[in-house]
Amino acid sequence: MTRHATLDGLGAFVHEEIPTAEIDRLEELHAPLVAAVRDLVDVTIRTRVDEAEVRRVTAEVEALTGRLGLDALDGAAGVHYNSEGRSWNWGNAAVGVRNPVAPPLTISHDDDGVTRGVARLGTPYEGPPGLVHGGASALLLDHLMGETASMRHSQVTFTGTLTMRYLAPLPLGEVRLAGRIERQEGRKVLVTAEISGPAGRAIEAEGVFIVPRWAVRDGAEPT
Amino acid sequence: MTRHATLDGLGAFVHEEIPTAEIDRLEELHAPLVAAVRDLVDVTIRTRVDEAEVRRVTAEVEALTGRLGLDALDGAAGVHYNSEGRSWNWGNAAVGVRNPVAPPLTISHDDDGVTRGVARLGTPYEGPPGLVHGGASALLLDHLMGETASMRHSQVTFTGTLTMRYLAPLPLGEVRLAGRIERQEGRKVLVTAEISGPAGRAIEAEGVFIVPRWAVRDGAEPT
Repeated sequence: MTRHATLDGLGAFVHEEIPTAEIDRLEELHAPLVAAVRDLVDVTIRTRVDEAEVRRVTAEVEALTGRLGLDALDGAAGVHYNSEGRSWNWGNAAVGVRNPVAPPLTISHDDDGVTRGVARLGTPYEGPPGLVHGGASALLLDHLMGETASMRHSQVTFTGTLTMRYLAPLPLGEVRLAGRIERQEGRKVLVTAEISGPAGRAIEAEGVFIVPRWAVRDGAEPT
Repeated sequence: MTRHATLDGLGAFVHEEIPTAEIDRLEELHAPLVAAVRDLVDVTIRTRVDEAEVRRVTAEVEALTGRLGLDALDGAAGVHYNSEGRSWNWGNAAVGVRNPVAPPLTISHDDDGVTRGVARLGTPYEGPPGLVHGGASALLLDHLMGETASMRHSQVTFTGTLTMRYLAPLPLGEVRLAGRIERQEGRKVLVTAEISGPAGRAIEAEGVFIVPRWAVRDGAEPT
């Protein structure tokens, strides 16, 4: 049973009454498949096996896709939530736990008001040789800052502007992110964040996020 | 036989004397494998097949990864070039033709001075339901703008700052990008760009790219 709520210019957030325990079980079931596909992505870039083997493996990958596709959602994964307040966005490009394209970024909202993220960026996230693609860093910063602005999903926000200052190269490997709300003025939320590697800060970012007029809660003072 | 040139803060660009025709042949050989892995990524997000089948497919994906890994590059793909002026960066997160994480973005440097890009962003690039993740757009804009600043790779540039204004939601599907150099002042190159969907412009971007001091060519006037 699903209920669809279409928001201003957005697709549907889907209310789906699947118990949280069942969502957790499904995520656990799929985690090894997603990890296996991430490893396959990585070796697809690096492999030097001979021509005949490349063709044989290609045919077998196609067969596996066929098998998984025998029963599959039609279209993108979307964002779902249940009445217990659990939400799942399995296909999200940054944090989707069932999306092999997502590193994925793991986010925690800490008690000091800082939103922290961590991800392992390997071979598929390369830009300049041996370094994280500046745009892959931008993808993670964009996501972390949006989650920071939304304050543990307690307010709806849209990205207004995002500015990034590239300070230093970021080697492939583990990266860490941190974001905080600097101030909120009416419907504008100002967020700052950074992404860092073992040698420190690589990119600083500043974003203005907007609370849409329809989402302003009682007591807030919209400008 | 390879020659390594390590640049300021970067990994190695590798000079490798593989003829252009052989690089083209290798790209053609691998294209169907990369396409097959992209389809597998997509269905991994969407599949609803039963538990036993998920486990069986997982094991088979792991076996394929093992086979491709029997002979593979150690580490990331890097950026390579030959004496004919052909370069290949197969693992690049935005344009890598052997990287299933890259959509990939296809770029053309057109005679009107505009750098154009096109990509199909499906299920794995979702952010809000049904829409392209703002960070995935940022990844593509970052890459296109860097290529614009480098003027068909005739000058080396690094990203200084990047500012994005989010104007409208961008539905999953085909997206188009365009970038141009607004002006160059000494070692600073100012680039503007946008990404658009069927309903028009979704994000406008402005970037300042820096030509490193060591890369200034004779006759240029560094500031």
